[in-house]
Amino acid sequence: MYGDRARTFLASLEDIAPDLGTYVMEFGFGDIHCRPGLSLQSREIATIAALTALGTAGPQLRAHIDGALNVGCTEHEVVEVIMQMAVYAGFPAALNGIQAAREIFHERSKRNGRKKEKQPAHKK
Amino acid sequence: MYGDRARTFLASLEDIAPDLGTYVMEFGFGDIHCRPGLSLQSREIATIAALTALGTAGPQLRAHIDGALNVGCTEHEVVEVIMQMAVYAGFPAALNGIQAAREIFHERSKRNGRKKEKQPAHKK
Amino acid sequence: MYGDRARTFLASLEDIAPDLGTYVMEFGFGDIHCRPGLSLQSREIATIAALTALGTAGPQLRAHIDGALNVGCTEHEVVEVIMQMAVYAGFPAALNGIQAAREIFHERSKRNGRKKEKQPAHKK
Amino acid sequence: MYGDRARTFLASLEDIAPDLGTYVMEFGFGDIHCRPGLSLQSREIATIAALTALGTAGPQLRAHIDGALNVGCTEHEVVEVIMQMAVYAGFPAALNGIQAAREIFHERSKRNGRKKEKQPAHKK
Amino acid sequence: MYGDRARTFLASLEDIAPDLGTYVMEFGFGDIHCRPGLSLQSREIATIAALTALGTAGPQLRAHIDGALNVGCTEHEVVEVIMQMAVYAGFPAALNGIQAAREIFHERSKRNGRKKEKQPAHKK
Amino acid sequence: MYGDRARTFLASLEDIAPDLGTYVMEFGFGDIHCRPGLSLQSREIATIAALTALGTAGPQLRAHIDGALNVGCTEHEVVEVIMQMAVYAGFPAALNGIQAAREIFHERSKRNGRKKEKQPAHKK
Repeated sequence: MYGDRARTFLASLEDIAPDLGTYVMEFGFGDIHCRPGLSLQSREIATIAALTALGTAGPQLRAHIDGALNVGCTEHEVVEVIMQMAVYAGFPAALNGIQAAREIFHERSKRNGRKKEKQPAHKK
Repeated sequence: MYGDRARTFLASLEDIAPDLGTYVMEFGFGDIHCRPGLSLQSREIATIAALTALGTAGPQLRAHIDGALNVGCTEHEVVEVIMQMAVYAGFPAALNGIQAAREIFHERSKRNGRKKEKQPAHKK
Repeated sequence: MYGDRARTFLASLEDIAPDLGTYVMEFGFGDIHCRPGLSLQSREIATIAALTALGTAGPQLRAHIDGALNVGCTEHEVVEVIMQMAVYAGFPAALNGIQAAREIFHERSKRNGRKKEKQPAHKK
Repeated sequence: MYGDRARTFLASLEDIAPDLGTYVMEFGFGDIHCRPGLSLQSREIATIAALTALGTAGPQLRAHIDGALNVGCTEHEVVEVIMQMAVYAGFPAALNGIQAAREIFHERSKRNGRKKEKQPAHKK
Repeated sequence: MYGDRARTFLASLEDIAPDLGTYVMEFGFGDIHCRPGLSLQSREIATIAALTALGTAGPQLRAHIDGALNVGCTEHEVVEVIMQMAVYAGFPAALNGIQAAREIFHERSKRNGRKKEKQPAHKK
Repeated sequence: MYGDRARTFLASLEDIAPDLGTYVMEFGFGDIHCRPGLSLQSREIATIAALTALGTAGPQLRAHIDGALNVGCTEHEVVEVIMQMAVYAGFPAALNGIQAAREIFHERSKRNGRKKEKQPAHKK
């Protein structure tokens, strides 16, 4: 689900806090994300919402936007979740979240050699 | 979707900041929650995640837990979203979110004269 | 400017952290609030904005709403500042700030034996 | 009031979340900033205070420092508001806010070909 | 270390999110608090500092103030840590933390039938 | 204790907010950090915990990681404090704190021409 990103992440902790990587994998992904009762897509939506609202977790927000797309969320859904955070955490949080999404969408479209979806304007 | 709760809410703003109520209804619910591209259930999951993670919006978290159940989310799903926030915003945020859920579940089961669902333990 | 509220505040710290009260008075009010370059009203507006946005400082927000009115801000101005925070910190922050203002306005109107100003709706 | 900055901002949302730009303009600037009852200068002071205290909205803080100077606030006033946040949100918030102000003051003095104001020390 | 408080805590989660209690115990206390390399007292000091600074975790802050005193921290040390947070998270955070400490100190002195330590003023 | 870092810091405020530097030195370091009742090491541990949990004070967190090592804390202790924050403020806060520690450890080991300590994995 996170592939290379997870390997790079674990490697970056290796020389300084290897157990923290283990905890993230065991508790974060093993215990929590694999629990029944909520789909992986819904779990990623919840995570993107929370990290956008907090506004203090740029690298993790980007990783989860990528992860959300890997488990089947669409770019459109990711954008909607982030945009909704304007209501609950203010416009700056939503705007910064959108910039994170933009980076990941670009990165993925470059990787995949295809154009990223253009988000339609629903407001007339 | 929010029924009496919405009416009480708007009434509480009437004498001091009536426009704020109008903005919540027009922008929050009219513009954002009614946008296509994300189901109402997913929007409530995102909201519960964000408000649990922020930890500064008790009354709004409770209103949205209620709202989530009104649009078809199950108590089990609400609990899973809140519990997941332990990973992203720490255990205190998740624990305080669970207490909010508990209040609303009790309130609803009293209102409906039925026992609330008991959440199963998945961990052995 | 804060009168009885300041005395009660200092007394509440007396037996446990008297120096903290001294620091608030010396640094917070002596050093900062008395600096030239910004009017007392503007300083209170800034404080109300920040505390509303943070959402973690209920008692201090209420004290500064009271303080703002004591240095010549109007109830209308206080309401406008708090309402504006919906844009920067989300609606829950603004809504909780408005409830704090409401409490203080009621408390003051009871104390002064006069009706508090009714805020006009500017939206049609 | 925000000029080129606003155009760049809207353009950056065009391909991914054009409606978010519309909401910022309609709700943030149209509905809220243009309300009567508080001067534009006071609204910018409130915004700078809130964004400094939150500490999660660097680009927006810089935009509003620029905006504040455009509507008639002085550099001195901007510095005073940010410095005051040390009391309410801690020194790191104030220090990071001051670095944002510094960037904008430099940018503007370069643009205008004049030296930026040197802030006087009021402390002996 | 937390005794009755832990039992009440786990019981409060029993009917709604029993696994969350298990995670707190296994991950929070089992995995993290028992790691070598930092004394239990230092771990409690770190926790009190963080929860005071966040300002969103009242019940957990109170539990850890109690826990700190149970593992050998003094009331004086607890007060110093909280007071120090004025520098890093602002005075409201420190003031609210002190009120939490006050509650717990009173509760403990009542339980133990002895007068709580009076904190000396160090400032002349 | 902070040496060159302090000088650079004060110089960066000189032209824009010199009094803020004075307040940090007088109130932050003079008044608070020098109070009796808590060791300098414990004060740095508390600061690192708080700044990691808040997640909004990158430069200050790095300065205090450096400061902690200067007053006798070990790299191992610094890592433990930051890792513990996963429990109280979520994994993203701890992970971002660890990256800050990593930067400072590298910077110091380069400065001192010696290899930084490798942190052991305690989890089997």
